[in-house]
Amino acid sequence: MRVDAAANLIGRRGGPGGRVLMLGSHTDTVEAGGRFDGIVGVVGALEVARCLNEAGVELSLPLEVVDFLCEEPTIVNLSPLGSRIMAGNLTGEHFGGAVTPFGDALTDAIDALGGDSANVEAARRSLGEIAGYLELHIEQGVVLERESLAIGVVTSIAAPCRARVSLTGVADHAGATPMNERRDGLAGAAELVLAVERIARAPDMIEEGVGTVGWLSVSPNMVNVIPGRVDLTVEVRSTDAEALAIARRSVDEELRAIADRRGLEHTVEWQHVERPVPLPEHMQGAVAQACEDLGFPVRRLPSRASHDAARLAPVAPAGMVFIRCKEGRSHCPEEWADLDDIVQGARVLGQALFRVDEMARNA
Amino acid sequence: MRVDAAANLIGRRGGPGGRVLMLGSHTDTVEAGGRFDGIVGVVGALEVARCLNEAGVELSLPLEVVDFLCEEPTIVNLSPLGSRIMAGNLTGEHFGGAVTPFGDALTDAIDALGGDSANVEAARRSLGEIAGYLELHIEQGVVLERESLAIGVVTSIAAPCRARVSLTGVADHAGATPMNERRDGLAGAAELVLAVERIARAPDMIEEGVGTVGWLSVSPNMVNVIPGRVDLTVEVRSTDAEALAIARRSVDEELRAIADRRGLEHTVEWQHVERPVPLPEHMQGAVAQACEDLGFPVRRLPSRASHDAARLAPVAPAGMVFIRCKEGRSHCPEEWADLDDIVQGARVLGQALFRVDEMARNA
Repeated sequence: MRVDAAANLIGRRGGPGGRVLMLGSHTDTVEAGGRFDGIVGVVGALEVARCLNEAGVELSLPLEVVDFLCEEPTIVNLSPLGSRIMAGNLTGEHFGGAVTPFGDALTDAIDALGGDSANVEAARRSLGEIAGYLELHIEQGVVLERESLAIGVVTSIAAPCRARVSLTGVADHAGATPMNERRDGLAGAAELVLAVERIARAPDMIEEGVGTVGWLSVSPNMVNVIPGRVDLTVEVRSTDAEALAIARRSVDEELRAIADRRGLEHTVEWQHVERPVPLPEHMQGAVAQACEDLGFPVRRLPSRASHDAARLAPVAPAGMVFIRCKEGRSHCPEEWADLDDIVQGARVLGQALFRVDEMARNA
Repeated sequence: MRVDAAANLIGRRGGPGGRVLMLGSHTDTVEAGGRFDGIVGVVGALEVARCLNEAGVELSLPLEVVDFLCEEPTIVNLSPLGSRIMAGNLTGEHFGGAVTPFGDALTDAIDALGGDSANVEAARRSLGEIAGYLELHIEQGVVLERESLAIGVVTSIAAPCRARVSLTGVADHAGATPMNERRDGLAGAAELVLAVERIARAPDMIEEGVGTVGWLSVSPNMVNVIPGRVDLTVEVRSTDAEALAIARRSVDEELRAIADRRGLEHTVEWQHVERPVPLPEHMQGAVAQACEDLGFPVRRLPSRASHDAARLAPVAPAGMVFIRCKEGRSHCPEEWADLDDIVQGARVLGQALFRVDEMARNA
């Protein structure tokens, strides 16, 4: 077991050598979140490694089990940290001034976990070093549950694009300012919240897409003062890159129109722009074959949520196993997956690992 | 000078005896607010008293200058404190658990200021004890400025009615939850914000009225979580009691319709319901006469904002002098009134005091 420079926690099975098979996910969770998103993937991977050891199975390549640092977007504009650093998509240059939710400098927090913040590039893997990466995860949706299926094969991972938006009007007396003289930041923000919903619902606009204003802050936020400024985040996600670009453009246009109509100043910064990640056919095939080997129907479906697999994709062929979860609830305390489904998911993960190992041996 | 049981700061001129003339306002201000709302009225009243002393003028009744405790709605659902207590509209029974914005128990804060929180009823005045109350205040609107007038005569004071509203949906993963399966508290709240604006703008709905959502809090308020719950305040104000009742009913109906349509739970509590306060004709007349005496045109106008005068009205005939302020800005750092207008306002205040004193003498 070791901690790499990015403070990823890595267990390794097998001898030295650059090329590895990798299983992993993350154990951090959003605030007021659940106990399965990410954690199931790390526990499942550990269980696979334990079974391999107990059964004395030899793989052709060393196996690494990774608990990636900080997958959830806790540190705005940087997270997920561990998989981005491993893929070379994030370097120490990006850390300037970043703080954790506990107020520590990000660099100090990484070092406290055993990482090496001054040299995080040491955690980077080159293309080819990871022969295959597999991740087990709860679906965070209702597709499998509705079809009474325990297991799904992930085809692609939707990309989240996140903007930070501000709308600035004039903070003024809520009693004395006539309606037609107001420049109310919150009224403008309310229109934008509904516009984001409308954009994400338009079927031609964003395929299998979603749009959310999850964070919103009002200033000065007093019962008797017209809100002078509202800051908020807009997030849109889709598995279709073009639909996503159209949605982003629509958000920008709606924002501009609202601000013009209401005499508000506005800013918009797309701080976080990802592209949807189609998973390689041979990795989907390995998971599908594992399902067939173990007697599960092969149900292919996209992932609307993002995962470490998506961030690792530039340097590692990635496959994902979904397991059914309760009512699609996630990022909330009600998040739930039955133990039996987790066990089946771990079996499929292990079986898919054999398939990937076979490919690596034959490559 | 003394502090009464309600921690109102009171300066007294003239001998003992129950019946008094009263001038006053408040010196507290909203957070991130201005330096004129309230303060001008206290400073103006002190200036009147100083001039009376310097000129050796005798009035028929003692004069009290009052700096009322906590006029701004700092302590939700209780403020304004000082004028409500003096009018007998608020007693110690209402204090249970109330805290100041600094985290102190309200009772401790009142005692620390020299009040007597266990016996605030001692600050109460009976009907008849205050022969007349006059308050100088910035207009907090643009009527006087637009008409290039320094002084206005207030006819009535609009009533603020404030509700605390909650909309509860389901906090869920912002990526994985399809648009048609969401119960998004913020999207519902956005509709309500726009409905409040629409209601206040409808000319038949709320005469000379305004409606504001000034405070709004999102939970869990994270970029990638659908807002499970939003709490917010709705404030509507009008000088017309019936229009105000219609506006309140409309807010309730819109809220119910939004919640039904979106599958949200909702609560609404009108915590603060006031009636508009028409100022007595003879007190308007005293201010109007003072304007004429000093050569100012008599411009009558309603007050959209509330004032200590409104809360004191049940026990004291109240009159108000408005002075012009800059662009109607108030409850913000840009709040401004020119010194010359303040001086003219204080002259009218003093002259109106003579008129009220005459009436008291002749009554």
